[in-house]
Amino acid sequence: MGKKAVVLMSGGLDSSTVAAIALKEGYEVIGLSFRYGQRHAKELEIAQKIGKMLGISEHFITDINLAQWGGSSLTDLSLNLPKDGVKPNEIPSTYVPGRNTVFMAIALSLAEAKNAEAIYLGINAVDYSGYPDCRPEYLQAYQNLANLSSKIGIEGKTPQLIAPLIHDSKVAIVKKAIALNVPIDLTWSCYQGGEEPCGLCDSCRIRDEALKEVRSRK
Amino acid sequence: MGKKAVVLMSGGLDSSTVAAIALKEGYEVIGLSFRYGQRHAKELEIAQKIGKMLGISEHFITDINLAQWGGSSLTDLSLNLPKDGVKPNEIPSTYVPGRNTVFMAIALSLAEAKNAEAIYLGINAVDYSGYPDCRPEYLQAYQNLANLSSKIGIEGKTPQLIAPLIHDSKVAIVKKAIALNVPIDLTWSCYQGGEEPCGLCDSCRIRDEALKEVRSRK
Repeated sequence: MGKKAVVLMSGGLDSSTVAAIALKEGYEVIGLSFRYGQRHAKELEIAQKIGKMLGISEHFITDINLAQWGGSSLTDLSLNLPKDGVKPNEIPSTYVPGRNTVFMAIALSLAEAKNAEAIYLGINAVDYSGYPDCRPEYLQAYQNLANLSSKIGIEGKTPQLIAPLIHDSKVAIVKKAIALNVPIDLTWSCYQGGEEPCGLCDSCRIRDEALKEVRSRK
Repeated sequence: MGKKAVVLMSGGLDSSTVAAIALKEGYEVIGLSFRYGQRHAKELEIAQKIGKMLGISEHFITDINLAQWGGSSLTDLSLNLPKDGVKPNEIPSTYVPGRNTVFMAIALSLAEAKNAEAIYLGINAVDYSGYPDCRPEYLQAYQNLANLSSKIGIEGKTPQLIAPLIHDSKVAIVKKAIALNVPIDLTWSCYQGGEEPCGLCDSCRIRDEALKEVRSRK
């Protein structure tokens, strides 16, 4: 049996690239995606489609209703999504309380049950929206927790949390995606779920700018 | 508005006592329980009933299917529950991979959305079943993660993780429960979900021994 990795897949550019990286590094990839109360299910369909195209071996979709107590414009339909660009030093209303902490906890549960050696994450601390749970020190604290929390932690084989894009610019991520044949135009990063990306939310803005820059240089 | 605390409530003796402690300390208590693929839903009914009796203000039941990938005799019906007593230095098959890590992550999400100052947990490192995620160093690592992970963490008001029974013996917990008028005979600690507790699983054994000891001294 080959070495296994759990990859958190949102259907977006970053996590799809991360899945391609894990596959290239020789892992058998188990995809994990969440129906957490986000505005649309489009990202789940796309995550599954991309997983199949890249050749992952299994894909779990887990329900966890973080919209039950609201607190974010991504899950609370009574709040408006911000459309006027990323503001420096401000955590935007799209931040979902505890989302990454919950997703990684569930990934640890899956990794432990499947004896996976690694958990790959698409978090990024450069061209991102200012979420606190995307920072390197957050990842380090989570690894420390994982080392203490699990049965396999005690037995000395805790899954390693790997965020291969954490220090990359969005332009660098696009270049890696191209090199790895990630179906970039199929990936979905938009916070909305329409036919076409809105082009106005933070996620669209950051992505579109990088794609334009890379493609204009060709 | 009074100060708020999220309390993880399983319907068992320990977490019910912890809810009573949080209420006594003046918190408005938000209960949180999980339908996670455990063998029976009895503990959820009981957790809600006890919450009402104690006077908590809100109770969330969250679905998170940790049985999706098995790995524990508590969630995988093809495995047998151990019935021959707790073995020293061994993690039993009832350990659910990542369970406490997942539950606490969801509690953090709820606490942040509701501006709760504290999260109360019934974990115990003395008379317990040998689960790695009940140890004080695990709790400390989680607090460290919480401090880094959240929006309110950045703003300086991270919820505090409080495990008031962590160093207590089961006998000491029973005494606290009695002093706080916890409806002990209503609480349900058994891993099975029959009409009466089985009396044979680890959880029943530890509880019954303590109850017997305290009641025989009266």
